Amino acid sequence: MSYELYYWPSIQGRGEFVRLALEDAGAKYEDIARGKNGVDVMMKQMKRHGVFAPPFLIHQKVVTSHTAMILHYLGPRLRLAPKAEAARLRLHGLQLTITDFLVEVHDTHHPIANSLYYEDQRAESLRRAKSFRESRIPKFLGYFETRATLPFSYVSLSLFQVMEGLDYAFPETMRKTNYRNLRKLQEKVRKRLAPYLASERRIPFNQSGVFRRYPELDG
Amino acid sequence: MSYELYYWPSIQGRGEFVRLALEDAGAKYEDIARGKNGVDVMMKQMKRHGVFAPPFLIHQKVVTSHTAMILHYLGPRLRLAPKAEAARLRLHGLQLTITDFLVEVHDTHHPIANSLYYEDQRAESLRRAKSFRESRIPKFLGYFETRATLPFSYVSLSLFQVMEGLDYAFPETMRKTNYRNLRKLQEKVRKRLAPYLASERRIPFNQSGVFRRYPELDG
Repeated sequence: MSYELYYWPSIQGRGEFVRLALEDAGAKYEDIARGKNGVDVMMKQMKRHGVFAPPFLIHQKVVTSHTAMILHYLGPRLRLAPKAEAARLRLHGLQLTITDFLVEVHDTHHPIANSLYYEDQRAESLRRAKSFRESRIPKFLGYFETRATLPFSYVSLSLFQVMEGLDYAFPETMRKTNYRNLRKLQEKVRKRLAPYLASERRIPFNQSGVFRRYPELDG
Repeated sequence: MSYELYYWPSIQGRGEFVRLALEDAGAKYEDIARGKNGVDVMMKQMKRHGVFAPPFLIHQKVVTSHTAMILHYLGPRLRLAPKAEAARLRLHGLQLTITDFLVEVHDTHHPIANSLYYEDQRAESLRRAKSFRESRIPKFLGYFETRATLPFSYVSLSLFQVMEGLDYAFPETMRKTNYRNLRKLQEKVRKRLAPYLASERRIPFNQSGVFRRYPELDG
């Protein structure tokens, strides 16, 4: 039975990490909110299943929410994670660290409130982005760099997406970095996913997702 | 074999959610960093096992990190979660929503950078806390309120801790709210955990944890 993915239809956002796993595995899935009346359907399902926010996935009556948990569920099923508990949980921990990082990426352009426009929290964004560039990118990518050579898994796909996103949002900052393992992994995944990345299923980066390009935040 | 919990020894923080589950179950555990040279031991173990940050748990060679994942692991073992996959994942999703909320709680006093003192990001904190009080508390607690009547689990213990923390950090704001299910649950857990809460194992709330009391942030 095919997977039903529910996520905002016009952004990569957090849902993209799930899409990459489904695409890499060649899994049969429907990106429900991108279909007709898709967002309405998504909101109804969200309410029905008591889910707090997209993304969520429905598969054989099992409802999973949160990017990291969806990938934890999909991992062994898509052969993108081992089945043994300890190894599987280790990957889940890595993915949760990526989740933590994504919150920080998002908050570079929304440090005060999600409900306010970027323009209304620009001064605070400048301050937060500075700390993000100088402290948080090195801390997180330094850690991910040591994990980039682990056996291929859904985490590899997510690390690719993190690098792509940072290259989009912080091109100048990223140009000055040197994460060899992560760059190698990024190239590898780009080749693996070439058909998907060239398809219209891959939504381009834009100014509504987690990764946004505001040159002033790039230092 | 007993559980080894690793977390900062002087705060409740995220580790407290794990402590509550272990205490409620009467599990045998060691709060390693609170022992002799505890923080040194913790840092060594963290490095050794490639963990990004505390809290983490070691049990029979399985290393789990991140509060929500540790609880996901402990749940069925402590009889604080069902064993069936769908139900177990549903709880994990709820706990991850609590994780998301805790980031927002933390960022009310650290909206710019973790590495800066509160006093150096006070103006931004005032703005962020306003949005937190007016939009985020209602959004999250409104959701948790609908989940507070689910069968008792580690999530129940975590919701207790969320309420205790908010009462400590935002007493005026919380006084004006009316979450009957959450309040009932809070009372129930307070009774259940009375011996622990009265013991010196329960670290008091303080100005270094996730929940901090700055009256100016309470509106």
